[in-house]
This record gives sequence, structure tokens and C-alpha cells, in this order.
Amino acid sequence: MVEQLVHFQPLGRKTNAKKGKTLLQLATEAGVSIESICGGAGKCGKCRVVVRSGDSALSRPTESELKLLGEETRKPGMRLACQATIVSPSNIIVEVPEESMRGHHRLLAAGVEPKTALKPAMTKVLLKIPPATLKDLRADDDRLIDALMKQARVRATIHPGVHASIPNAMREKGWMATATLYRKQEVVRFEPGDTTGVVYGAAADIGTTKVVAYLIDLRTGETVATESMPNPQIPFGEDLMSRISHTIHETEGASELQAVIVEGINALLSKLCEQNGLQHEDLLETMVVGNTAMHHLFFGIPAQHVAAAPYAPAVRTSLTMAPEHLGLRIYRFGKVSSLPNVAGFVGADAVADLISSGLYNDEKTGMMIDIGTNTEIIAGKKNRLLSCSCASGPAFEGAHIRFGMRASTGAIERIWIDPSTKEVKLRTIDDAPPRGICGSGIVDAVSELFSAGLLDASGRLLKAPGNPDVRKAKSGGLEFVLAHAKDTAMGEDVTIAQHDIQEIQLAKAAIFTGVSTLMAKLRIRCSDLSCVYAAGAFGTYVDAASAMNIGMYPDVPVDRVKFIGNAAGSGARMALKSTDVRDLAETLSRKVEYIELAAEPNFQNEFAQAMFLPHRDLSRFPHHRKQKPRT
Amino acid sequence: MVEQLVHFQPLGRKTNAKKGKTLLQLATEAGVSIESICGGAGKCGKCRVVVRSGDSALSRPTESELKLLGEETRKPGMRLACQATIVSPSNIIVEVPEESMRGHHRLLAAGVEPKTALKPAMTKVLLKIPPATLKDLRADDDRLIDALMKQARVRATIHPGVHASIPNAMREKGWMATATLYRKQEVVRFEPGDTTGVVYGAAADIGTTKVVAYLIDLRTGETVATESMPNPQIPFGEDLMSRISHTIHETEGASELQAVIVEGINALLSKLCEQNGLQHEDLLETMVVGNTAMHHLFFGIPAQHVAAAPYAPAVRTSLTMAPEHLGLRIYRFGKVSSLPNVAGFVGADAVADLISSGLYNDEKTGMMIDIGTNTEIIAGKKNRLLSCSCASGPAFEGAHIRFGMRASTGAIERIWIDPSTKEVKLRTIDDAPPRGICGSGIVDAVSELFSAGLLDASGRLLKAPGNPDVRKAKSGGLEFVLAHAKDTAMGEDVTIAQHDIQEIQLAKAAIFTGVSTLMAKLRIRCSDLSCVYAAGAFGTYVDAASAMNIGMYPDVPVDRVKFIGNAAGSGARMALKSTDVRDLAETLSRKVEYIELAAEPNFQNEFAQAMFLPHRDLSRFPHHRKQKPRT
Repeated sequence: MVEQLVHFQPLGRKTNAKKGKTLLQLATEAGVSIESICGGAGKCGKCRVVVRSGDSALSRPTESELKLLGEETRKPGMRLACQATIVSPSNIIVEVPEESMRGHHRLLAAGVEPKTALKPAMTKVLLKIPPATLKDLRADDDRLIDALMKQARVRATIHPGVHASIPNAMREKGWMATATLYRKQEVVRFEPGDTTGVVYGAAADIGTTKVVAYLIDLRTGETVATESMPNPQIPFGEDLMSRISHTIHETEGASELQAVIVEGINALLSKLCEQNGLQHEDLLETMVVGNTAMHHLFFGIPAQHVAAAPYAPAVRTSLTMAPEHLGLRIYRFGKVSSLPNVAGFVGADAVADLISSGLYNDEKTGMMIDIGTNTEIIAGKKNRLLSCSCASGPAFEGAHIRFGMRASTGAIERIWIDPSTKEVKLRTIDDAPPRGICGSGIVDAVSELFSAGLLDASGRLLKAPGNPDVRKAKSGGLEFVLAHAKDTAMGEDVTIAQHDIQEIQLAKAAIFTGVSTLMAKLRIRCSDLSCVYAAGAFGTYVDAASAMNIGMYPDVPVDRVKFIGNAAGSGARMALKSTDVRDLAETLSRKVEYIELAAEPNFQNEFAQAMFLPHRDLSRFPHHRKQKPRT
Repeated sequence: MVEQLVHFQPLGRKTNAKKGKTLLQLATEAGVSIESICGGAGKCGKCRVVVRSGDSALSRPTESELKLLGEETRKPGMRLACQATIVSPSNIIVEVPEESMRGHHRLLAAGVEPKTALKPAMTKVLLKIPPATLKDLRADDDRLIDALMKQARVRATIHPGVHASIPNAMREKGWMATATLYRKQEVVRFEPGDTTGVVYGAAADIGTTKVVAYLIDLRTGETVATESMPNPQIPFGEDLMSRISHTIHETEGASELQAVIVEGINALLSKLCEQNGLQHEDLLETMVVGNTAMHHLFFGIPAQHVAAAPYAPAVRTSLTMAPEHLGLRIYRFGKVSSLPNVAGFVGADAVADLISSGLYNDEKTGMMIDIGTNTEIIAGKKNRLLSCSCASGPAFEGAHIRFGMRASTGAIERIWIDPSTKEVKLRTIDDAPPRGICGSGIVDAVSELFSAGLLDASGRLLKAPGNPDVRKAKSGGLEFVLAHAKDTAMGEDVTIAQHDIQEIQLAKAAIFTGVSTLMAKLRIRCSDLSCVYAAGAFGTYVDAASAMNIGMYPDVPVDRVKFIGNAAGSGARMALKSTDVRDLAETLSRKVEYIELAAEPNFQNEFAQAMFLPHRDLSRFPHHRKQKPRT
């Protein structure tokens, strides 16, 4: 018999779908901590989950759910995990929203956004139209164009789809009407009366793992609300390569992936609109960023060639598409726009990073690093910018690390090891008993073990006489005990094994090969870097000194590392708010030179050297040192 | 019980739907002469009709039909009238194609088309794309744009919908591919290999009564094929006012009218493609003309304001729409374009007339007259052009005339009356026994009666002592016998009654009021007109001397009348073939001044004077004379 499983997304945990059990019980079995204040009594409403597939295998919504979820029960799949019970075992996919995770640890969604002079593509103008009379026989379209010219000093054309609404809109409210202009060139909407008070747009950052959408008031530039969700493409593959592979091997694969991400963003837009008393039709434009593969999949453009040498993207230039063409639920004749890509693995999100970091305008040389499964690096200054992408893998997200986990309650996020006593001090998220190690903890662990002399430069764990924390692992090789069973949430030791350390070495070597290749191309040394912009959630939480100590970041004074948070989201919002930013992005995407690391003759050698801690060539790490304050 | 009728379109004839009768028999009952060489035996295949509604009330297709109609039986509703038998009486709408009318008399569909320098909006260019390599990492879109620049010297953007096809099309045939450019500005198609041999477009003239479509080879400018059909909106109203009224009173009225005309043109395009081994996708653009109401209904733009003072059109400027937006079956990212309108009753068809006549470029003053239910007149020369529209009504199409009929077999098309003997000579279409009078015959009749002294200047029939052909009509008043029962097809006299003459007077007065108003505005007299362009089918067949004799055309030497046929269709083809023509049309539509006759203070007086034969003010007709040769 085929196993019937409940999959909990986006963590990828699963357990058997046992009849009679609630999703809350099964989540606990699967090691997924869903929040519940009332202990599963159906009273607190905290354990909301979204059943993405297989909801017919579940009990019908209970009275508690109808009451607590209110209108939300109408949303497909929304349930309380403590109420939804398996009635007929089946494969079920359950998405656990971040808000429902116990002690949830929101990813840094806001980002550091430089002030942007408001110049949105979509603007509204109230017009007083001279009525049609036997003495003024102008056609309605001429009447509108003339009024725009006279009253707004704008020479515009009319979107072909808008003509149908002009005659009645002109006459409905006494020849007062509001025209919506796209880039002050095209009338994309024409409404009776004064609607100039409602001018909204959305920005979306499509990450491989997470999708964030922002609602922006285009009159003020204010970010009114933010919503996020796991990327709904995850069931088709955790990483982008397996998703692209899905588009190659399944006839409808690309359409499926496009449909789920478009529907996902539609769901985020629905939330943003509902919370703020808006309709989908009030959203005039959506600005989208993402890595090149996410960008292509969203826009329905073949991504397969991105995945094979020479990794050419199908589209570099900024796109502007009709919402209808994509199925995105915003105003029908609005626009769905994107920032441009640079290369197959340096996408619109990296361009957004570059813009919000300000690096493109720096007089002194700097570097922007956005660490993820693929790490994008851009280095240079105003007159010249180089970029590359490093296949750093998912180790920092906890994958392939035995006790790796997401940055949520109980994750070890900081580690200190006393160089003399080898005593370990930990900090966990929410100060809860340790359950595992998240990305920043893993980097700290490697850095501290190295500084404490428990790791050699090649990354080998060293036996320490009299220190039982370095011991033989069951799986063979050595491991180091970070937390003992008595102190942990699960009652077993949390360790870091030789294999885990090697994963981190591979990841950091991939990143540093990018760092060093760009520096070599720019003919600079670490000391020439006036600033290192650390973008993205991982970049924000990882300890910069540790990252330097293991040779992941370039060796600069720690105060030159600047945390810019979700810079891709910030850049997307900036672009939504200003066409100048878009024009800048277009210029930058042409200007930024892309270095294909795999094509570099010295790549293998650079990579091999970078496997060492911090590096085989210590002249690259002149300040090889430890500066982390003991907090 | 409600009557169950069979309606024969576009003639508007109907008869009871009697069980067991064939459509051929019922057509004869309804006075519709459908061609049949085999006498209804199902052998000749000439009696093809299209059942537009109620086909479930008919017998299933017979073997004869399956054999004779071949693949065409698959077309919805196509039947042989002699085979389709009523099985359950119901309301049935049958369209009789012009080809199936006995002794059919094709409307002049070709028109006189001045030579047009080929400069189509859609062009193709074969490109050799440099392959993507690790040494040439450009994105596919940049690669395409660069190749266009280098190999075709074109700086283009890419239609957003086309990006999806670029990556595979580039690689499929060894990096050789064909780009289709719109106005040398936008890549609207990208196909693997060399497709430069297939570059087609279509032009369509949407008349209130008839729709004509042309297939054009855009490489040569050649008109490859022509197809026509009655306007499928006719069941919603014979004239445009009743169709507009349908859009006002029925919620879905406008959508219905748009759907049937789009489907009608799709059907014509299907025929054109099938005959020439093309696919709908091979058609890159469709250029549409029509009067303002037909234009608006086709493009889904409210036409209601066209129908009420001050008759403002919703759209003047040339439109370019996405085929998908309209449902027109041509290449998905091709274009559906129109010529511009001038006013609510001077539409894109009149602009097309103007262009193909050449009047816009004349150094000497001329006039273009396109007679229809609404007659458009444009007068002037290069530096100034005036236009107006006259509500001339459907009398010239035979409506409201007792023996009026379409120009088909047996229609009296020419009449001569000997001024002394009052003897009548007739010419009928196909020299068949007279069945009725078509438009040109009616004008001849009034002109000849007047010249023979049988009509006075007020249009009153005069009793002629000793001439029994002027007699009391059964309906009261006088009538004149044109053909005696013994000579006619039906065995009854064909006559023209006082009432018929009045209808013609009303129609010609409406036209001449337009003629004289424009001449007054231009401060010219008839003698100043160097040319009168007679456009449209009626303008081609009516005798110019007769038209002048009754005071419908301005009084110029007959050799100054130039017949230009279906000038609207010609203009549409010219515009399809040349963007210069479109630019010219756009300029002209702004330049042509529109005169709203109803707003002219002297309108009533002018109209009343023009009711006389030829006019109350004979100084307007200095050459009031008869010049028609007796052929």
C-alpha cells in the first residue's frame, strides 16, 4: 500500500496521515511547532493553517472554526489545525503560515529603504471636460486628450481598452472625471467624478522560499501593509533547479508553476486589499522582483536555458505586461512591471538590492552580498560594477545540516566557545531550550570552534584531550556537542558533525570565490572595500565577525559591514514609487558586468583555496581575528 | 399560438415555417430567388444557405449535402436549401449568400485603388543570431535586439507576450530565426527559421448592409482574394439607428452586436485563409473601416451618443487593438487597426473614400459623394476639406418603393421615355423579364418622367391626355406604368407611384442639401467643381445625368463625374499596405471640417427648395439639361 502522508510546508516535514488525528497533533509528530494557546480546544484561533491539497480527506469545518475564522473560512483551505481531523487518509499538503509557528520569527521583510522622491508611473488627474454641444462637436477621445493637454499639460494617448468607458464616464458626473495616466503618456483608466484619493500599487518580492507583497499608497509613498507567504511553488521543488526541471519534464509544468505563483500573489493582494478596505481594481500597478528563474516562471517565460551553460536569461530588460496576460488580479488595464535582470543567476532581486544599497552611487569601492541558495555579489563603485552568483546551497537554511533548522523558537542563533576552557555559551531564539541550529548559529559554531583551536584550517575537528565535547559520532568521524541532552527541547544532544562543517566550508568557499574573483577583476584588496552591504535575512542575522573569521566575508573592519535587510523588497517598493528608479535600474542592469565564475580559468583553484579557514592564502585575511563582543 | 416563421436574410423576407417543406420551397414562397440549376434535386449544389438560428428544426444533412458541401458541412449551419426540410416548425433565420441568389449581381467590391507604395506596418526580417556561449552571455532579448540593430538597422522593443517564444525559437533552427516587426518598432513575433515568405494581412470594410474582407500579400501588395457577406448584425436591425437602439435597450446588446460582427469577419477570414492554404495565425494585421457606428460596435465602444445630438463619436483617432481583446482570429500578438473617424456620421469609411479618391490632394476643388442610407459628402481641395452626412434613407436600396428591389436579375436598371411619344424603353439586369426596379432604375424613372413632362417641378405626376400609362392607382393618387403585366415576370404591371416619387425627392433633397451647404461654406458654385467622385455601389450604377437631372448631384458636365467603386474597401487596403497612408488618414481626419447639417440655420429652407426637380432655385442648375445617350 502506498503511504499516505501529511506534508507540512514550507518546512518540508511529513508524517503519516492517521485517521482521527488532528492536523495539530500530526504537526507535533512531524516536529512542526504550531502555536496554540488554548491547547487544541478550538478557542484561541492561533493554529490557522492552509490546506493546499487533499482537504476532502479532512473533517468539515467545526462551529469553532466558522466562528473564529469568520469570513476567512471562505478562503480555500483555511482551517484551524486543532479542529481539522483526518477522516480518510490521503496525501495532504498543509501550509503553516509563519504567524502560526510557535514563537515565530518573522523574516526581515521590511528592509532598509532609502528615501525615494515620489514619481510613480501611475498618477491620477481630475478633469473638467467641456460638454459636447452642436457648437463643440469634438469626438470624446479628442475632448479628453485636449483637456489633458490644457488642464494637466500632458500629451497622452489612450489605452485601446479604455475607449469603451470614456463616453459614459464623461457624462455620468456632470463632465467631471478622473484620468489615470501611466508614465504621463497613456490614459489607462477613465472614471466618472473625482477618484484622485485612491491611488494604490503593490510591490512583490518573489523569493525561491518566500514571497512578500507590499501595499503602497502612491500619493504618499507610504507602505500601508505587508503580507508574506511561503512560495507556493515549493511543492514542485524546494530549490529553483528542481522547479526548472519540472518545467522541462512536465508538459504543463511551466504553466502550473506560473499559475501557483500568480495565485499566491493574488492571495497576498487579496489580504492587503481586504485589510485596507480596497478592491483588487484599486491596485493600478504591481512591481515584481525575484531572481531570474522566479522572474521567468512568474512571467511565463521559459527558464530552462537559465539552468544550463551558458546560463543565458531569456529576458534582461524590464518587462511591463498586461495583468490579464498573467491572470494577476489588479486593475484590468493596469500594469505588471518588473525590474530588469542582469544574468541567469543575477536577477531583478539583485538589481533591487543594488538600488536600495546605494552602492551604484558610491564614490568609494564597496560590495553587496545577498546570501541565499544562490548568493549574488555585486562589487565596485559608481563608474564600474561587477556581479556574480555563487552556488552557495541551502546549508544556511539548515538543509544538509543534521540539527539544522529554520530561525524559529529554540534555534541556536549565537554561539561562544571560551578559547581556554572550551566552555560553550549559547543563545536561542526566544530563549527556549535548544531544538537545533539555524544559519547564524552554524556560522558561529564553525568560527568559534576554529578560534578555540578545535578545528584546524582545513576544517578538521581536532580531538581535545580532556574535552569530552569532541567525540566520535555514531555515523563515524568526530562531532562536537553544542548542547547536552539535559538542556535541549528533545532530550538529546545537539551536535555539529564533521560533515556539517564541511557543508559550511563548501558554502562559504563558494561565496568567497565570488568575492575574491570580483576583487581580482577590480584589482582591489579587502582593505580597499569601504563598505560591505549585507542583504537578506541571513545577512542580517549572521554575525559579521564570525562570517569573516571563517572566510566567508571579505576581511574588513566589522563596522564597515552594513545590514540592509530585505533589500530586494525595498528596491521593488522604490521602483514602484519612482519611474526614475526604474530608469536607473535599466541603466544599471546594462552597466553591471556579469562574471560567470564557472568560466573563470582560476575558478577551481580559487575554490579549493577558499575551502580553508579562513583561506589557504592568509594574505587575503590580514586582519584574521575575532572581534565579536560577548553579549 | 405564436407564428413560427422562416426569416430569409439579408432581404428581410419571411414566410410560415411549414413542416415538410424545404428551405428552397419556402424561399420561393417568400419571394426570395435562390439559384438552383438541378431544380431542387440536390445535384447542383448551387442553393447553399447558412442557417443562422433554429437549425434543430431542420432535417439532418442528406447524403447529397455531405457530398456536395464536402468539408463545408462542418461549418455551422451550412446547408443546401433544397435538402433542408422543416421537421418541427420553429423560428428559423436563414442567410442567403449573394452567390446563391439567382442571377446574382455582385456589389462592386473591388473599388478603384490608386497605386500605393508598399510600406506595411508588419514586416519580417530573417536574422542570424550569434549563439549564446560562455564568452557571450547576453540575455536572449538583448541578443535579439542587438541582431536587429546590426542586421536590420532597426531599434525595436519586444512585445511582452513574445518573450515566451524567444528562447526556444532562437535555438530551434541553428540560431536562424525570423522576427516580425510592427512599424519597425516592436517585435511582435519571433519564429524559428525563415518564414519571410509568408507575410499576410487582411482589410475589412464593415458596411451597415454588407461586409467585405480582402486578403493581402504584404510582400507584393497584391489582393489575393476577396470575400463578402451580409452584415450579420442585420437581424438586430436593418439600419444603424435600430442597431444602436438595440445596444441601449438590451443589457447585452452591444456585446451581442460586437460578437456577431467579429464572428462574421472571422468567418470571412476563414474562407480567405482556406482558399489560399493559410492559417488564421498567418494574418498579422487586419485593417478595418466602417461608418462610425459600425466602427464603434466592432471595437466594443458605446455607440449610443453617436445617435443623439450633438452626435459626438466616442473615438476619432485611429485605433490599434490586440486581436485577443476583440476575439478576432488572427495572429495572437498581431494588430487590429482602424482608420480614424471624422464625426458621428462621417466615419473611417469616408476617410478611406477620401484617400482612395485622391480628393485630399487635388489642386482644384472637387466633391466626393458616397450614397447609402447615410450619404457622406466631402468637398474641397488640398488646403481645405469640408464634410457632412445626409440622412438619405434606404429608398435607393428599394425600400419604401412599391416595386423596389435589390439590383439582381429582373430589376429594371435603366429607363428611357420618349419626350414626344411617352413610349417607355427599359433595360433589366440579365435582360430578364422585369420583376421590379432597383435604385438606378428609380432615379432614371423620375428623371425621364420629369424630362418627358409627365412630372412637374414639384414632383407631381401629371395626367397626360391620351396616355393610359399615367393612371389612378388603387391606393389613390396617380401612378405610371413602367412595364405591363404581359411583359413582366410576375404577370402584373410594374409601376411607379406618386408616393414612390416623393420618397426619391426626399432622398435626393437630403443629399443635395448636403451638396449645397458644403458649396455655400466653400463659397463655390457647381461650375467650380472640377470633379465629382461617385463612390459606392449605387454611385457606380446610377446614371450621372439622371442624378443631375433630378437635382441629386451638383450640376457639372457629366464627364466630370468619376466612378470610384467601393472606395472604402480600396482605402482600407491602401492603409493596410502603407503606414504612410495611415499617417495621412490621421492628418486628414483632423483636417476635414465637419458640418452638422441639422445645426445649419438655413437647413429647413435648403431642404424644402431641394425637394423640387431639379431645385426651386434654378440658378443652382444652370445646365439643367439631359445628356444621357440613348443606348
